[in-house]
Amino acid sequence: MKIAFLGPHASFTQLATAQLFPNDELLPQSSILDCFSAVENGDVAKAVVPLENSIEGTVSMTLDYLYKTPSIKIEAEAVMPIAHHLMIHPDNSIEDIEKIYSHPQALAQSFHFLDTHYKDIPKQDFSSTAAAAKYVSENKDIKIAAVANQYAANLYGLKIINRNIQDFEQNHTRFIIISKLQNKYENEDLQTLGEKSGMLITLPEDHPGGLHQVLSVFAWRKMNLSKIESRTLKTGLGNYFFFINVEGSWNDILHGNALKELESINADVDFLGNYKEFLLES
Amino acid sequence: MKIAFLGPHASFTQLATAQLFPNDELLPQSSILDCFSAVENGDVAKAVVPLENSIEGTVSMTLDYLYKTPSIKIEAEAVMPIAHHLMIHPDNSIEDIEKIYSHPQALAQSFHFLDTHYKDIPKQDFSSTAAAAKYVSENKDIKIAAVANQYAANLYGLKIINRNIQDFEQNHTRFIIISKLQNKYENEDLQTLGEKSGMLITLPEDHPGGLHQVLSVFAWRKMNLSKIESRTLKTGLGNYFFFINVEGSWNDILHGNALKELESINADVDFLGNYKEFLLES
Repeated sequence: MKIAFLGPHASFTQLATAQLFPNDELLPQSSILDCFSAVENGDVAKAVVPLENSIEGTVSMTLDYLYKTPSIKIEAEAVMPIAHHLMIHPDNSIEDIEKIYSHPQALAQSFHFLDTHYKDIPKQDFSSTAAAAKYVSENKDIKIAAVANQYAANLYGLKIINRNIQDFEQNHTRFIIISKLQNKYENEDLQTLGEKSGMLITLPEDHPGGLHQVLSVFAWRKMNLSKIESRTLKTGLGNYFFFINVEGSWNDILHGNALKELESINADVDFLGNYKEFLLES
Repeated sequence: MKIAFLGPHASFTQLATAQLFPNDELLPQSSILDCFSAVENGDVAKAVVPLENSIEGTVSMTLDYLYKTPSIKIEAEAVMPIAHHLMIHPDNSIEDIEKIYSHPQALAQSFHFLDTHYKDIPKQDFSSTAAAAKYVSENKDIKIAAVANQYAANLYGLKIINRNIQDFEQNHTRFIIISKLQNKYENEDLQTLGEKSGMLITLPEDHPGGLHQVLSVFAWRKMNLSKIESRTLKTGLGNYFFFINVEGSWNDILHGNALKELESINADVDFLGNYKEFLLES
């Protein structure tokens, strides 16, 4: 099966995709839009894109494209702790390193470690952590190191000198698997964190209390929201849609009736699926 | 006055900051965290950081640092349409160009234009649009172009060949001015789009209907919400805080009583300010 993901090769999204689809053909895309287009056109069966906290893509794009392409639904969510490692060409030694390359945000996220241990070594911005790792692998004659992930170290045969150099332990990225298949992704090899439903809700008109009315539908049924995010519609200022996650497995009576009640108050609901949340390794 | 902004030089954030603070000393920072630290430590009076849709920083960081540093408040919000231009060294001619450099997301956002007009010219990822423009200005002997903004073209003396090559007209970035001054930023040279209040709300415990109860406070007062976003607290799965924007100017009775009612239901409210929203040029 062909699976698109937000590239480049050895990006954090590929690290996630390789765990979700270990036996499939993974095709890197240069943007979140390209991932959605590949799914919509049928070039691939599924795609993996970041939903929250990525350093590789503006993830608000993911919500916007979910809204713009109603045929595309969510099969699963996956959460991965962010881990940065310092790596060099295996023929070089860390004492010789004269420069450290990485994505500006990866350097920023590793600032305290780098400032403590490699204060006098200049840092250089690169377009991605993966591109920095590739550059190190191809240029063993210049003495450089990269800050990148485990997948990049493996792919480009680099030696990891320091592991987990990120400043905050609990930083993580969330990804979703998207497709047109209305499928529920399953994987017994991964730890399941829970189950949830995703939906996009547009209100008929922008009036005070509109969102409150929508949330009443879930509140009196004691359905717990785990995420809510508003996004501007491009049609004009002041018009919004909402991305909402409701906790729990699908329940015909509970979910079915909630969706009917949302319809009855003229909310436009794009139900994206009831799906599992998995924990990935960094 | 010293103003920090999310760099590098000639980033979109600098383009915004230069319009908001035309007569002040602007200091680029390498991360959103550094902008907050500079304000908290008193190294600068204010900082400008992206709040939505930036290609230069993970803007969920902005919400997280607003939460973590309660002394820092919002003075204003500013919205800027995103405009990408194709630019070259003034001594070169567009017919000779052999490669186009930019940030991967700027290339993705200009994909249809570049694919139509410069299909056979290879594209190369750079760490930022500004760094690509700088590289073009310093290397007139290699025939390269950059996709970057107007500010970068001016700063590095580049010639713009094609203007507004971004694929979507209505894409924009939102920025906020942050400080510890509890000040309301004013600027009569900029167009004002409206007024709003920003607040961070944490619920005493995660229970179904908790957010619904909070929104009731605004709903029955007919106070309109223009943005709502939930963010996970790092203390554990399932604990959230909410960033909420309420439309309108400050009103002692309306806002004062709403805040009192939020306190009475044990919600923890960090009121970030009542401030204006300005329109910037791209």
